Amino acid sequence: MTDLIRSWVDSANSSETDFPLNNLPYGVFVAADGTPRCGTAIGDFVLDLAALEKAALLDFGGTLGRAGWNAFMALGSAEWMRLRQSLTEMLLEGAGTQAVVEPYLVPREGLRLLMPFDVSEYTDFYAGKHHAMNVGTMFRGPENALPPNWLHLPIGYNGRASSVVVSGTDVIRPHGQLKGPNDDAPRFGPSQRFDIELEMGAIVGQPSTGPISVAEAFDNIFGYVLLNDWSARDIQAWEYQPLGPFQAKATATTISPWIVTAAAMEPFRTTTPAREKPLLDYLVEPGPMLYDIALEVGLAPAGGTETIISRTNYKEMYYSSAQQLAHHTTSGCPMRVGDLLGSGTISGPERGNRGSLLELSWGGKEPLTLAGGETRSFIEDGDTLTLRGHAQGDGYRVGFGECKGTLLPARG
Amino acid sequence: MTDLIRSWVDSANSSETDFPLNNLPYGVFVAADGTPRCGTAIGDFVLDLAALEKAALLDFGGTLGRAGWNAFMALGSAEWMRLRQSLTEMLLEGAGTQAVVEPYLVPREGLRLLMPFDVSEYTDFYAGKHHAMNVGTMFRGPENALPPNWLHLPIGYNGRASSVVVSGTDVIRPHGQLKGPNDDAPRFGPSQRFDIELEMGAIVGQPSTGPISVAEAFDNIFGYVLLNDWSARDIQAWEYQPLGPFQAKATATTISPWIVTAAAMEPFRTTTPAREKPLLDYLVEPGPMLYDIALEVGLAPAGGTETIISRTNYKEMYYSSAQQLAHHTTSGCPMRVGDLLGSGTISGPERGNRGSLLELSWGGKEPLTLAGGETRSFIEDGDTLTLRGHAQGDGYRVGFGECKGTLLPARG
Repeated sequence: MTDLIRSWVDSANSSETDFPLNNLPYGVFVAADGTPRCGTAIGDFVLDLAALEKAALLDFGGTLGRAGWNAFMALGSAEWMRLRQSLTEMLLEGAGTQAVVEPYLVPREGLRLLMPFDVSEYTDFYAGKHHAMNVGTMFRGPENALPPNWLHLPIGYNGRASSVVVSGTDVIRPHGQLKGPNDDAPRFGPSQRFDIELEMGAIVGQPSTGPISVAEAFDNIFGYVLLNDWSARDIQAWEYQPLGPFQAKATATTISPWIVTAAAMEPFRTTTPAREKPLLDYLVEPGPMLYDIALEVGLAPAGGTETIISRTNYKEMYYSSAQQLAHHTTSGCPMRVGDLLGSGTISGPERGNRGSLLELSWGGKEPLTLAGGETRSFIEDGDTLTLRGHAQGDGYRVGFGECKGTLLPARG
Repeated sequence: MTDLIRSWVDSANSSETDFPLNNLPYGVFVAADGTPRCGTAIGDFVLDLAALEKAALLDFGGTLGRAGWNAFMALGSAEWMRLRQSLTEMLLEGAGTQAVVEPYLVPREGLRLLMPFDVSEYTDFYAGKHHAMNVGTMFRGPENALPPNWLHLPIGYNGRASSVVVSGTDVIRPHGQLKGPNDDAPRFGPSQRFDIELEMGAIVGQPSTGPISVAEAFDNIFGYVLLNDWSARDIQAWEYQPLGPFQAKATATTISPWIVTAAAMEPFRTTTPAREKPLLDYLVEPGPMLYDIALEVGLAPAGGTETIISRTNYKEMYYSSAQQLAHHTTSGCPMRVGDLLGSGTISGPERGNRGSLLELSWGGKEPLTLAGGETRSFIEDGDTLTLRGHAQGDGYRVGFGECKGTLLPARG
């Protein structure tokens, strides 16, 4: 574990901030002149990287002036390292550059953050074992909880990139076809079992055109975000056989606005859990490629106080994003800069570690009680759901900020 | 049924050409100077629309100089009509513009055609009833052939846009996890049951941000292509439960190079089949929105002659693309210009009408015999598969050209 890297930006040296100099996450913000541009969070500030590049204090081919990190990601890992190195030197405590750089800091409070990258395609996995066990037990009983393929491959399906939104975007309760087990026919109406899924998202930063190894996949991942894969359980139950979830997952997927780079997460690498069955060679990890990231979910009713309804850790995943990405390419599937891979719901072993309301309320049979005394089986109109996550260093943390969304009532 | 619209381009007046003046399909070709640009097929020629726009004979904001039709599609339906009208007038028999326009014709023979548009996202449906019955009967028996939701909604899943390629692109036999019913554990190797799926693709030409009606969906569809959704049946069998096909469908999806517009297909509209169960209101079509398009599949072994292995018709579909697109938006899923919707495999009632080898060979139990005497259960290395389709007018046809691909051996 490395120590805190001290910065001349005082607020970046706090043990409480998500954004010490060790982090340097990449986002897109709206500058005072109204233009979107690339920035990095440092303590209570955002450093305007577009302006630094315009002032010739950085040179990355103009990519930092774009409204997304795709063009920068496409430059490749040597440039990823060069930017991180340059920013570290500029912001380091005692750096001679302070006077030159300081004018490019913008207070983070109240700043409007946009999608940090254009999502090329979005794939979601089902790779958390506690989650798969919980859901499988509810639907098929404990003896058949895990599908036969589950221990052999990271099950994934293609999601909908057009519905990925940045934290702070309201989500509208969807309509869909609903059919209860005792109904004769389906009806069309607002989802009654609207839910979250606590996930991490991995962002592909380099393209590939054929199968790649787990090690290559690890190197191609630029960074990570928190990801909430909003899910309409009742729509899903009726539509998903035999070809998987479709409209149940297409209302919205919310991501946090800051891409925390793989470089920043390097000190927090950890191994996937021990295997019950040996993996095929192409899925074996050459080293620790998962991360130790503490995660939590808050639920605040409209006008009410927030209750933390779940606490878990990314290291609970059975398959890392690198394994998922390698599997994704086995068929020859081309991967592109900006592809987003959802980890799958991250639940831990205990009830309080579950990453969805479906699990937390055990399908609605055991409603949660919130701090204000209200109960919840699924999300109610007006509820705000917030994911948070950070890796804990020695006296510092590398955090993701918030991944937040409020559910608005169904339209019409 | 309208009559042939005669052109001063003689070859466009043949009853055999796919590209009479009634058609005017849109593609992207590589000009003599090496640049890709928009064109329309007319008889044995392609009209260079980028050059016409450069010469100020057309004016669509420079969109015709792009290497894809997305920017033009985004202009909206009034501009779609205006271009079609302009081209019809320019190419009409006796038009005074012949001398001016003729220099912009390029012989179609040997011309290199590229992807006609950038695929934003790709969705594939499962909306052909004969196909669903055939596949369901093979896997679950005739009494459980159709899933319970099948008659109520167009089942769809998200495919992989990055793997969509234009006709003529070779396809490499994929690797994947394979596990036979009697195997103890999966192994990793080349697919042994690689297949085609004969489909039509609908191209979304206007965006939507919330639920839209079937009528609105119909208006938002710019045009259609032939689509071959290459499928690894053995990879699919092991991976697809519970979240649907993933790597089995990600090797390649081939489309024909010419977008046949909805306007060109207008005379060939037909209704979907009678319903066994009433549809929910949001899926009811206000008029005929399917098309009568004769389809065929040819299979040619390496160096051998082609056998037509299937003949069917697009009008066999149970759900139209307009119904599929409307359903796609129910959850609030945003649709974008360039979204591609695969119809689902189009099989007819008889054995010779089946749109996949899985069905034609009944899962390998009844291999096909080709013209040269060879047999086929699934695709062999070196086989070339070609889809063709056309709507038949009175003395003319509106055709799609070819959708072709050759299977190369697995790598490594």
